[in-house]
Amino acid sequence: MAKSKNQPKLELIKAEELAQQQREISVAAFFEKNRHLLGFDSPVKALATAVKEMVDNSLDACEEMHVLPNIIVIIKESGENRYIVSVEDNGPGIVKEQIPRVFAKLLYGSKFYRFFQSRGQQGLGVSASILYGQLTTGKPAKITSRISPKKPTHYYELHIDIAKNEPEIVVDKEIEWIKDHGTKVEIELEGKYQKGRLSVDEYLKQAAIANPHLNLVYIDPLKEKVEFKRVTNELPEEPKEIKPHPYGIELGVLIRMLRNTESRNLRSFLTNEFSRVSNAVADEIINKTGLKPDLKPKEISTQDADKIFRVIQQVKIMLPPTDCLSPIGEDLLLKGLKKEINAEFYAAISRSPAVYRGIPFEIEVAIAYGGSSFQQDELVRVIRFANRVPLIYQQSACAITRSILNTDWKNYGLQQSKGALPIGPALITVHIASVWVPFTSESKEAIAHYDEIIKEIKLALQECGRKLQTYIRKTVRVKEAKERISLFEKYIPEVANSLSILTGKKKELIVISLNKMLKKGLPELIAQANGENQNGKAKE
Amino acid sequence: MAKSKNQPKLELIKAEELAQQQREISVAAFFEKNRHLLGFDSPVKALATAVKEMVDNSLDACEEMHVLPNIIVIIKESGENRYIVSVEDNGPGIVKEQIPRVFAKLLYGSKFYRFFQSRGQQGLGVSASILYGQLTTGKPAKITSRISPKKPTHYYELHIDIAKNEPEIVVDKEIEWIKDHGTKVEIELEGKYQKGRLSVDEYLKQAAIANPHLNLVYIDPLKEKVEFKRVTNELPEEPKEIKPHPYGIELGVLIRMLRNTESRNLRSFLTNEFSRVSNAVADEIINKTGLKPDLKPKEISTQDADKIFRVIQQVKIMLPPTDCLSPIGEDLLLKGLKKEINAEFYAAISRSPAVYRGIPFEIEVAIAYGGSSFQQDELVRVIRFANRVPLIYQQSACAITRSILNTDWKNYGLQQSKGALPIGPALITVHIASVWVPFTSESKEAIAHYDEIIKEIKLALQECGRKLQTYIRKTVRVKEAKERISLFEKYIPEVANSLSILTGKKKELIVISLNKMLKKGLPELIAQANGENQNGKAKE
Repeated sequence: MAKSKNQPKLELIKAEELAQQQREISVAAFFEKNRHLLGFDSPVKALATAVKEMVDNSLDACEEMHVLPNIIVIIKESGENRYIVSVEDNGPGIVKEQIPRVFAKLLYGSKFYRFFQSRGQQGLGVSASILYGQLTTGKPAKITSRISPKKPTHYYELHIDIAKNEPEIVVDKEIEWIKDHGTKVEIELEGKYQKGRLSVDEYLKQAAIANPHLNLVYIDPLKEKVEFKRVTNELPEEPKEIKPHPYGIELGVLIRMLRNTESRNLRSFLTNEFSRVSNAVADEIINKTGLKPDLKPKEISTQDADKIFRVIQQVKIMLPPTDCLSPIGEDLLLKGLKKEINAEFYAAISRSPAVYRGIPFEIEVAIAYGGSSFQQDELVRVIRFANRVPLIYQQSACAITRSILNTDWKNYGLQQSKGALPIGPALITVHIASVWVPFTSESKEAIAHYDEIIKEIKLALQECGRKLQTYIRKTVRVKEAKERISLFEKYIPEVANSLSILTGKKKELIVISLNKMLKKGLPELIAQANGENQNGKAKE
Repeated sequence: MAKSKNQPKLELIKAEELAQQQREISVAAFFEKNRHLLGFDSPVKALATAVKEMVDNSLDACEEMHVLPNIIVIIKESGENRYIVSVEDNGPGIVKEQIPRVFAKLLYGSKFYRFFQSRGQQGLGVSASILYGQLTTGKPAKITSRISPKKPTHYYELHIDIAKNEPEIVVDKEIEWIKDHGTKVEIELEGKYQKGRLSVDEYLKQAAIANPHLNLVYIDPLKEKVEFKRVTNELPEEPKEIKPHPYGIELGVLIRMLRNTESRNLRSFLTNEFSRVSNAVADEIINKTGLKPDLKPKEISTQDADKIFRVIQQVKIMLPPTDCLSPIGEDLLLKGLKKEINAEFYAAISRSPAVYRGIPFEIEVAIAYGGSSFQQDELVRVIRFANRVPLIYQQSACAITRSILNTDWKNYGLQQSKGALPIGPALITVHIASVWVPFTSESKEAIAHYDEIIKEIKLALQECGRKLQTYIRKTVRVKEAKERISLFEKYIPEVANSLSILTGKKKELIVISLNKMLKKGLPELIAQANGENQNGKAKE
């Protein structure tokens, strides 16, 4: 059959035989086998990832309801390398019919098709944690939820049917609950608890910085209780849902939108389905394509859609609205940071929104410098946030890290080796707020290297860096003056002694007057430096 | 309703309202939005990724059929930033009924549930390329396939229905084809063609190194034809399918296997469903759990499954069989390398198989050194293979790179700065062959950092490094001798002149005899070094 002369002597296998092996792979089976893609590669990381996904979900829920979040996180050891993680919120609760699928079905959620800033994007996180718990302990997840004091509290125990990616209900009953509304999720999983930079504790601490409106009580596996108190009683500005911007649309999506739209003609399709397409813009697009404005969208061919797609890129369209974003803001970023990090100097910057691939985003940067929290000669610490979620793992793969590496920190008073993080007693915090954060993997640990994003982060770092530099210059000046003084001070007794012998005056008086002379210039220097600091948002 | 006194003045949103937003997200929609996870982040990379996925598929198909692969790759420019990529093979073809789903449904494939070494793992690659083509050009993929000269050739044009993740048949007809059997896939996509380290050309060149049995004809967008000829007429040893090893099984999977098994009791379940579980091992497991051997698997509780799971880790079980692996082998690795890379010295090592999480894997390393292909003072080039597939992108995120960085190359005659790749005129090739390669993302560009894998790679690098060191030491000795000689040579005319004056002999004769004396020692040194080289598998 095959024509090669060099055919090996193995029996040929036919397509029919191979066909028998073909089958559909459920997304649950896929992620069960590839659980490292979801952040569950090691027991330490798995514990942190599960808590992160659960807390993020609670925060989103409370904000969607317009209620200040009160969250309780309890991690209890349940056996060798096993923990029960429980996260309880005062959010809106979930209607009974949807509880099983919200928690025990992967790729089920409310945010995938909407354009607004939120922590969750794809309906994966919490169900992935439940999948992982089931995989490693065989235990079902326990869900308690109530939507109103007038309604009963529902309690579910849920497995995921891996082959179908559908919930399997183990227990479904009504129970008594002290809460009027809210949700509690309990997952038993294989994990490992430890302290340090990559720990649950660190994630929660950073979450408190990025969410100054959050009140969180945390009981760790050693039964120690930590409370992160809110520093503001105002909810973040609610991000508005927007329509896609024409610049960010891809041809395949445009074709699908044309097919599915309820708009009756091309012109209304363009003005209805996109943001920033006024009648004038729609007319310009249509004119340039040479198509008729009253063409029915469903009848537009792929070829004509391609024309529209190409024309869109040439027409000048206003950038997308930015009220879909909810940045932390300079003041609250500083407040959050000051609460958790003890430093001598703080500065923060919120940039104006920018756009990548039609998607709005906004960068915020804060720097803390000096004080007992830091070592003098270590690499600076980096804290990364995306839509108010701390990113703990994969620092080196992240666009934020790349941006810091590519900034010349020697200009701003820090040491830096080529291609490395700067060195100094400092912490750099970067927040990206966006309608769609491009993560490098499902576990949402690092941001992809889009040029536009890196450029914006660098600009923010430079702006904040200049404030730091002003502070360091002043501090260094004061410090140098102090050092000069302390050097002279050492000689005062000797000089006074000699002068006393020469002049016959009392040595003690000479010492006092020498000291006075020496320190005369200092207060001015300090005042000058302090003045600068306050402008640069120094510690009050 | 909410109890906080600090309730903001925003209207509360109820669970019922939020519930309306909840919906299922198809895996096609998920990957359409997250196409960078599949390797389609930039036009340059997208082109390389599509070719890679298509060629990998063809190679797997040919090997499954036991036929030496003849593959034709054609990339044609079809417009501004648009290309038609066509890959044609002489594999078994695909039965008519399955063509639509094999190509136009994500997570559909034949290898996900089987344990043997193959390029494809999850049934994502080619359909992802088709998804990307559709997204960026709106065009359907064109598939031609025939399974036997006695059967007709089927031609399909396929779209993916994104909302359902199901094929949408645009054209379905029979056509004439010169081939007896095989498959041809054509995808039009947005891309960018360029030469260099991260190009399609480079991928194909490396694929030829890792697949010495492959014959590939490539016509690039500039219409230049390149042929990669096979260097062996033997197919790789066929990897055998194995059962999972007990050490690699997770509790959740064990529970599911117990539920789905056709074995009638616990003992036969253990011996039938796992590799390396003899009757004696099964009895030992059962005894240690205190369960009855004739227990029906379906009736075993989660708690008892947990007991079995824990006992398995304590029982001594033979490592999994390794005929599921098909390494390239030292000889063929060298042959492939020599064909594509011009160097002075070559060495290769195939390690014995090792195991991570119950999964067998094998590491192979080859080094090429010296010659006109390399610069003296640059970082060494790294070529990475996983199951014979070249990994082009994400080098810095890969366990292979980490292993090279963590090896002390100064021991083996190369320069190296701390934490960097070694410097020198060399190429390091690493191949990991495994039943399941743990990639860091769906795009399969980098290998996750498992300790066992990194350890094995380092051992292989060290073994190969020692051969390199022997060669470098000898070469350096010859080189130094030559340098000494050329230094003396400079003085010969002057010395000869003086001697001629002193002795009265002819200057020309003195020059000749001085030259003779000088070069006397050299041939020996060279012979010695060459002898060493041949042992070290130097270029013949």
